Amino acid sequence: MMSTELFDRGMANRRAVLGDAHVDRSIASATEFSQELIEHVTKYCWGDIWDRPGLARRDRSIANLAMLTALNRGHELKVHVRGAINNGVTPDEIKEVLLQTAIYCGVPAAMESFRLAGEVIEQMAKE
Amino acid sequence: MMSTELFDRGMANRRAVLGDAHVDRSIASATEFSQELIEHVTKYCWGDIWDRPGLARRDRSIANLAMLTALNRGHELKVHVRGAINNGVTPDEIKEVLLQTAIYCGVPAAMESFRLAGEVIEQMAKE
Amino acid sequence: MMSTELFDRGMANRRAVLGDAHVDRSIASATEFSQELIEHVTKYCWGDIWDRPGLARRDRSIANLAMLTALNRGHELKVHVRGAINNGVTPDEIKEVLLQTAIYCGVPAAMESFRLAGEVIEQMAKE
Amino acid sequence: MMSTELFDRGMANRRAVLGDAHVDRSIASATEFSQELIEHVTKYCWGDIWDRPGLARRDRSIANLAMLTALNRGHELKVHVRGAINNGVTPDEIKEVLLQTAIYCGVPAAMESFRLAGEVIEQMAKE
Amino acid sequence: MMSTELFDRGMANRRAVLGDAHVDRSIASATEFSQELIEHVTKYCWGDIWDRPGLARRDRSIANLAMLTALNRGHELKVHVRGAINNGVTPDEIKEVLLQTAIYCGVPAAMESFRLAGEVIEQMAKE
Amino acid sequence: MMSTELFDRGMANRRAVLGDAHVDRSIASATEFSQELIEHVTKYCWGDIWDRPGLARRDRSIANLAMLTALNRGHELKVHVRGAINNGVTPDEIKEVLLQTAIYCGVPAAMESFRLAGEVIEQMAKE
Repeated sequence: MMSTELFDRGMANRRAVLGDAHVDRSIASATEFSQELIEHVTKYCWGDIWDRPGLARRDRSIANLAMLTALNRGHELKVHVRGAINNGVTPDEIKEVLLQTAIYCGVPAAMESFRLAGEVIEQMAKE
Repeated sequence: MMSTELFDRGMANRRAVLGDAHVDRSIASATEFSQELIEHVTKYCWGDIWDRPGLARRDRSIANLAMLTALNRGHELKVHVRGAINNGVTPDEIKEVLLQTAIYCGVPAAMESFRLAGEVIEQMAKE
Repeated sequence: MMSTELFDRGMANRRAVLGDAHVDRSIASATEFSQELIEHVTKYCWGDIWDRPGLARRDRSIANLAMLTALNRGHELKVHVRGAINNGVTPDEIKEVLLQTAIYCGVPAAMESFRLAGEVIEQMAKE
Repeated sequence: MMSTELFDRGMANRRAVLGDAHVDRSIASATEFSQELIEHVTKYCWGDIWDRPGLARRDRSIANLAMLTALNRGHELKVHVRGAINNGVTPDEIKEVLLQTAIYCGVPAAMESFRLAGEVIEQMAKE
Repeated sequence: MMSTELFDRGMANRRAVLGDAHVDRSIASATEFSQELIEHVTKYCWGDIWDRPGLARRDRSIANLAMLTALNRGHELKVHVRGAINNGVTPDEIKEVLLQTAIYCGVPAAMESFRLAGEVIEQMAKE
Repeated sequence: MMSTELFDRGMANRRAVLGDAHVDRSIASATEFSQELIEHVTKYCWGDIWDRPGLARRDRSIANLAMLTALNRGHELKVHVRGAINNGVTPDEIKEVLLQTAIYCGVPAAMESFRLAGEVIEQMAKE
């Protein structure tokens, strides 16, 4: 596959998971400094890994909620709570994944993710 | 629920996920020093969180593979590769989850988990 | 012990360590989404571990200041600076624990915890 | 070397790398609580390690950008983006180091560092 | 204080906490490559921080057991389990600190530290 | 660029940095399970990021030594100590980078990396 095809496919997957409104805001706030990172992520993350048919998008979202809590990356966690709901993970299932992080990542990690996920779920209910 | 019921339920879940052989080996190697930790984990992790009906065991296993890679806890990762297969995650799906950790946790994390998961999958194929 | 007893004991310990004002604020800001996490933490963290007589509350607070710095969990660190003072750790002893984190967790971790702990100590001096 | 010489040498190195304006602001915001940490860091970090002739300051800055991204310490990362530019690392080279963190630390770590570094570079362009 | 005094004081504290046998083994296995790190650690960690009178050695050991579990540094954890016992922390108190890490750092972190601490305690009982 | 070109370029870069002997051993030990990870890493890490002309290979190696110490990934650290020396970082400069990790990542991280790097340097001296 050509590099530009990979980018186009990545952009399509990113829009399907995160929604047009989110991706448009993200594109509008991009800078010259961050341009190449965005291309890298669109191609290799969204165009390659998220494009693979071997695991359902819903399962990929569950893995991401767990990983991003463990990694202490709250900004990306919020992005992927939105993605998880778009991929069919219910708020109750998000709650279950985060309760499980309390056991494996510790209570402070889970408390932070509950706070952030709760904000996104409340915001999406208003949209 | 009484504390002893929680322990019994936890032991049943732990055996269902990890298999009798693994749990029997683990019980045989327990020491007086680690006894209370094992009770704590059996009750609150296996008897409470893993007992909740709100998320399928298969989904909990996917979350664990992702979290344990992010947390750099190889010993527990191997335990939960076994659990994932017992819960119906296929080796190909484990591969997909771990490929996704390369993006979110970084390549060194993914490489270590591939090494460890490969060992467990090979071992289970012989059993 | 019944599950409700564990919760009640946990709530009592949590109030004793963190103070009624903090716990009342925390309860007031709880949401339906976070309700089960709070029950989980109140029972297993505050009702079980913090209830154990084998280690003084003051010692548990010292361990928490060190752990939360290492884990990069600033929100919980601030909660447990308050708890540490309520448990008899002096501001000078908190300073010593955090100086020690500079050696073991690195200078950036220690600097962040000094900033956050300083805010809590200043706030408590005004109350 | 006497302890006071170490401090003086550290202060000189810190000013050379981070700039007088930054160090003056930092000194002005110091509190009694944080005083000993600052002395510790000035002596052992700036007076000893940064004073060693065996590695160019530019190379030390590259190592710091990479480490602080991996450690998830955004506040210090911003300080050391400023230091990196003062030490001769160009914005394009900073971009390259951070693209490399996407591979080794994962995409969420890189995205956060791009955001923070972009802010510092834009701010310095205005000064 | 002169740099050599700091080193001598650090060596005395290190021997007092970790024991002559451990320190002698460590010195014997030092290489030219690691020589300067050992001097750095002996001066700034053992000669400065561990020398400060503001916190009891027993308290410093409790902080270290918690931190090293959170940091996933098993080799140093084992060294500081030995130090903790030499500083008057009982095996039962070590158990309590590690049970508390299960809550704050997560169960996999606690399980690893229990394994390692159990080995040291058993070894010291034989000496 | 086509995907196969990216792979070929990645393999060439990987061989240039890590040496043919290392890469041949790595290829020989690959399994069906790990095959796609290796392709992913060869293309995106070695074929793309390491291929970028904007930062010298020597600088990329310095960043990696720092990052891999912070990330606690000893296996990859050893691989990249070899790469660093092949890219012109001297053992004395590696020592300086690792001394700097003692300040920013903490002493236990630095001690582990000194141990591992020392082994690789000694091994390469014999080859």
